[in-house]
Amino acid sequence: VEWRDGRLAVDAQFSVALLGPEDRRISGARLRLLERLAARTAFELLPARAVAPETASLLVRVREAGPALPALGDDESYRLEVGPTQAVIEAPRALGVLRGMETLLQLVEGDREGWFLPAVRIEDRPRFPWRGLLLDVCRHWMPPEVVKRQLDGMAAVKLNVLHLHLTEDQGFRIESRRHPKLQELGSDGLYYTAAQARELIAYAAERGIRVVPEFDMPGHATSWLVGYPELASAPGPYEIERRWGIFDPTLDPTRETTYAFLDGFIGEMAALFPDAYLHIGGDENNGKQWNANPAIRAFMERRGLADTHALQAYFNGRLARILARHGKRMVGWDEILHDDLPRQALIQSWRGPGFLAEAARRGHPGILSWGYYLDLMHSTERHYAVDPLPEGSDLTPEQAARVLGGEACMWSEWVGPETIDSRIWPRLGAIAERLWSPAGTRDVADLRRRLGLESVRLEDLGLTHELGPARLLRRLAGAGAPASLQLLAAVLEPVEDYNRGRLFEAVRGRRATQRLPLTRLVDAVRPESEAALKLGDGVTELLLDAPRFLAARATLREAFAAWRDARPGIERLIDRNPTLEEARPLATSLESLGATGLDALGYLAAGVEAPESWRSQALVRIDAAAVPHGELELAVVPALRELVVAAASLGRAGQLDAQGFRAWVAEQARPAPQPRR
Amino acid sequence: VEWRDGRLAVDAQFSVALLGPEDRRISGARLRLLERLAARTAFELLPARAVAPETASLLVRVREAGPALPALGDDESYRLEVGPTQAVIEAPRALGVLRGMETLLQLVEGDREGWFLPAVRIEDRPRFPWRGLLLDVCRHWMPPEVVKRQLDGMAAVKLNVLHLHLTEDQGFRIESRRHPKLQELGSDGLYYTAAQARELIAYAAERGIRVVPEFDMPGHATSWLVGYPELASAPGPYEIERRWGIFDPTLDPTRETTYAFLDGFIGEMAALFPDAYLHIGGDENNGKQWNANPAIRAFMERRGLADTHALQAYFNGRLARILARHGKRMVGWDEILHDDLPRQALIQSWRGPGFLAEAARRGHPGILSWGYYLDLMHSTERHYAVDPLPEGSDLTPEQAARVLGGEACMWSEWVGPETIDSRIWPRLGAIAERLWSPAGTRDVADLRRRLGLESVRLEDLGLTHELGPARLLRRLAGAGAPASLQLLAAVLEPVEDYNRGRLFEAVRGRRATQRLPLTRLVDAVRPESEAALKLGDGVTELLLDAPRFLAARATLREAFAAWRDARPGIERLIDRNPTLEEARPLATSLESLGATGLDALGYLAAGVEAPESWRSQALVRIDAAAVPHGELELAVVPALRELVVAAASLGRAGQLDAQGFRAWVAEQARPAPQPRR
Repeated sequence: VEWRDGRLAVDAQFSVALLGPEDRRISGARLRLLERLAARTAFELLPARAVAPETASLLVRVREAGPALPALGDDESYRLEVGPTQAVIEAPRALGVLRGMETLLQLVEGDREGWFLPAVRIEDRPRFPWRGLLLDVCRHWMPPEVVKRQLDGMAAVKLNVLHLHLTEDQGFRIESRRHPKLQELGSDGLYYTAAQARELIAYAAERGIRVVPEFDMPGHATSWLVGYPELASAPGPYEIERRWGIFDPTLDPTRETTYAFLDGFIGEMAALFPDAYLHIGGDENNGKQWNANPAIRAFMERRGLADTHALQAYFNGRLARILARHGKRMVGWDEILHDDLPRQALIQSWRGPGFLAEAARRGHPGILSWGYYLDLMHSTERHYAVDPLPEGSDLTPEQAARVLGGEACMWSEWVGPETIDSRIWPRLGAIAERLWSPAGTRDVADLRRRLGLESVRLEDLGLTHELGPARLLRRLAGAGAPASLQLLAAVLEPVEDYNRGRLFEAVRGRRATQRLPLTRLVDAVRPESEAALKLGDGVTELLLDAPRFLAARATLREAFAAWRDARPGIERLIDRNPTLEEARPLATSLESLGATGLDALGYLAAGVEAPESWRSQALVRIDAAAVPHGELELAVVPALRELVVAAASLGRAGQLDAQGFRAWVAEQARPAPQPRR
Repeated sequence: VEWRDGRLAVDAQFSVALLGPEDRRISGARLRLLERLAARTAFELLPARAVAPETASLLVRVREAGPALPALGDDESYRLEVGPTQAVIEAPRALGVLRGMETLLQLVEGDREGWFLPAVRIEDRPRFPWRGLLLDVCRHWMPPEVVKRQLDGMAAVKLNVLHLHLTEDQGFRIESRRHPKLQELGSDGLYYTAAQARELIAYAAERGIRVVPEFDMPGHATSWLVGYPELASAPGPYEIERRWGIFDPTLDPTRETTYAFLDGFIGEMAALFPDAYLHIGGDENNGKQWNANPAIRAFMERRGLADTHALQAYFNGRLARILARHGKRMVGWDEILHDDLPRQALIQSWRGPGFLAEAARRGHPGILSWGYYLDLMHSTERHYAVDPLPEGSDLTPEQAARVLGGEACMWSEWVGPETIDSRIWPRLGAIAERLWSPAGTRDVADLRRRLGLESVRLEDLGLTHELGPARLLRRLAGAGAPASLQLLAAVLEPVEDYNRGRLFEAVRGRRATQRLPLTRLVDAVRPESEAALKLGDGVTELLLDAPRFLAARATLREAFAAWRDARPGIERLIDRNPTLEEARPLATSLESLGATGLDALGYLAAGVEAPESWRSQALVRIDAAAVPHGELELAVVPALRELVVAAASLGRAGQLDAQGFRAWVAEQARPAPQPRR
């Protein structure tokens, strides 16, 4: 990026000219660009004006259209130059134009003179060729329009692979004409027809996005067996699984009829999904049905297969031959790695970069998903720090080249069509940047600033990450004023990792199922609390930056006072909505945190070290506030803990410089490790 | 309604049993009821439990299913009884069950004991049999999903007619297989296919809603003539009209080929739309093309047709015969009324209840739309006051029975799919109540309370009246904090009546077109400012109710202080978004109103009459703040004017009682009539 002086006005005459071969993708992207610009500026930019190249506001020059369907390794590079009279996007292939247009839309800004593009010269291409999002459309069904809006968002952040997880214990989500009982009995009628799948593939291709389908086997296969119990390793009948977890039903790898069935099915899917890669899953086969079946045990003995892992390797070998026959390359999860696995099989790693490196050393291409699980409710910062090729990797250049990128994963046990957007966006933008931009781009504060901007633009594409939670909160508030509930929701986060299911089970005494409505407070709360991030910043400013002490203190005091006073309003809502009952202790904790925060500010402002008795009591209150309720946590607890420690350690502040004191406080405020919940 | 003691718990075991004939509509409504209850309570109510009638939470008893398609005059009555162990809905026909279920969903509430239905006995049936919403899908195209969510909302407020305005100068929105150039050349590709129309009709029928199609002729017909210029009364070629207004292109009523064409077209549409009524428009034919065409003038002379109105009556007579041949009854706007019009033709009146009464006296059934135009941005209260059969009507019972109800009209010059919901909802709920409930139900305060509750439930049906404006405001705020803009937007209203177009033209020097993006501040502002309503209540309380003076003053003071201080924040946003530039004077006015309001409160609190100089200057400032900008008005101006008058008239307050003073202030604060903008 080379910033220059000057600007190009974006006005009511903004126009786009195309030079180079005709291409549907480019003309479609031009139309969408004008639509998005028109919506933002309220100029009547459509229908698009026909203009000469030299007078166009934006000139797009492409050398060749390139293949109509996106493929791994496509040239996505582009050059964007904004000068005082014209912006130019140049790209070797159509895909580069698409990427460059997204950059251009990010550059548009306004001031009192009008809308404009700042003068700049950008040369851009991706660091990794495989940059994806896995959508689990099985645990909860996602209708085509939900997928389409994710594709729009993906295109905006320059991702290029949609991985559709199409089969699971809980649902078989793709139409097979050859084996129709798969979807007829395995899906509750909720699946993509072949026509819908083709439409999604075309929609993705227009945006330069590949669609890689996954058919998970031999485990995670209950829904296959409802219609075809004869494929199972234990006698049926089978029903669609409604709970979450790892289940026993597994395809029988010892019978030729299984492979005949799979050959037919994969042939059909290979024709439907044009991408060169096809994902066979291969994860979390617990081997129980295999070990319990004497015929299968006998088969293993006959073949000298030492354990179920070896048997699965045998199964994968057979599958590899079927895939090869249908012209597809295999993708599978870590578990498929085995000495017998053909070298070209691609490993998708949920285990981590170390495992991926190991696969690369053994000759396999691979992509990283560990660290990119959006369902685990981790922070943007945490995802952003994860790199498929971490600094200090000891891979040779040849091995490193096998690490092709990564995929964020949106597993859907706890999300439905109404809530999935708020779980994906805008955090996915950070992962997309990790996979596109140079490894050295790591400034978290700058990322947060840019992601805030991008989040608004993503909303304009139809994504519901802002709308969805707001609607759920209004529903929960009902007739009442939602302000106090919004205040509480803003400082809450869903519990991380797999704790939601654990806590649900612990509190309710039963496992959650597919039928549980996802309309509780926890579903209305964003994975990352902006308010908590800002509060953390405020505490840092307060402790580090003497000149800004007063401003920071005023902001924090306002927040704390609002928390201290919010409980009665929240309780009025809870009293009218039993679904909110689980939030009652959180409202009490918020009040207590507010009061404690105000105390701490008082000591800090007076420059009087808080007494030890106050410190210990405050920390007890904070520990109480740290306990999750309704699968939710108060995300502001760590910042409060720091403030209390700081207020009670002013003596120490005298001995250290600000930086040193800040670090010392952070260290002291780290809570003692808790026993695993 | 008879309220009783006690309640019926709505818990995780809530179940519904159906007694009576099997009916798709009832079983569908049962499923939707359980889905909506589940979403609200977060109980796993689906799949529906099979229960014995005596143990069901809700027992539905229906005598006969009734005809599968809804028709005018259907029995929609029901009885709902909630007792301590069971709720029962009884209805003669399926439609009554649907209406009763909506009432039941409105009754659900929660408290610390849980969710419940209060014990009650309700006997209910509609006052009018024709209760509709007209959707203009021509000026701006509305995709099927937009229509479907309106149907869901209509069902919730017990409306029973969707009037689709399908043809206009600006677009021909229905597929004709017989005359395909109608939609191919007249719609930019934006029309309902026959299959989509059938799907909408079925979706509506499942909710007990009729679909009445309108094909507007002989005027408003430009889009017909793009493909078939030979139908016109002046030589072509024609293009789709992009501007708003009344245009000349008119069908030629003198040629037999016109009637042959229409016979074919209406025959096709009569087969597609099953309702007994078909709307032929008939409005706003300016007669220019007819008067300018010698052949048409000669035809009129030959037939002894005195003027274009007589010629249109001739045309309508021919049309009536065509409709009769295809088994349809005619509906048309006021203009079709003529002595030669067959008595059974139904008049839809945009002129008012007086005209409707005249039609009824002349034997015609009729429905009212005057007073129900949602595009005019009138207040809920104003719509609610309009009655198709106003008190004191001098119609005989037989004539009065011809007044069948009314239809709200959502003309779409200034709304698109993103904004239409916020223009329709929740105001349509008030009109729906006027048409269903007894004429005596007129308590506006109670309506507002109930509409607030209903608005949240309507949102759960997928309506975007809350989400849409919020998203537009976020887009306008961009990276900036939207709070100050939200504050401003909350006290603004779009200008009323047809002033939006007038002001647009006056300011921009050109007419608005179909291509204008509807993404400006005026599009993000609700038709009725809740904040202004509350402020008005506050002023009334302040002036009337001495005991609550202090509370009201505190609320008002907080609001005024926020206005006074909002300008810098708003201007920071304007400085970064040129689209907002038009709001700059509004921000200044808001600041000025805030300061003026604080002054007035000061005088009132001190009991000191404000000096005349202050009064006159304050009123000048308020008059300045009353000037529209960006097609927007500050809706709080009238309340501020009252406050200023009151503060400067405390001497008068001493002479009058509170009620008298309040009335006197309201009278004094009425602004002088303005010259028409």
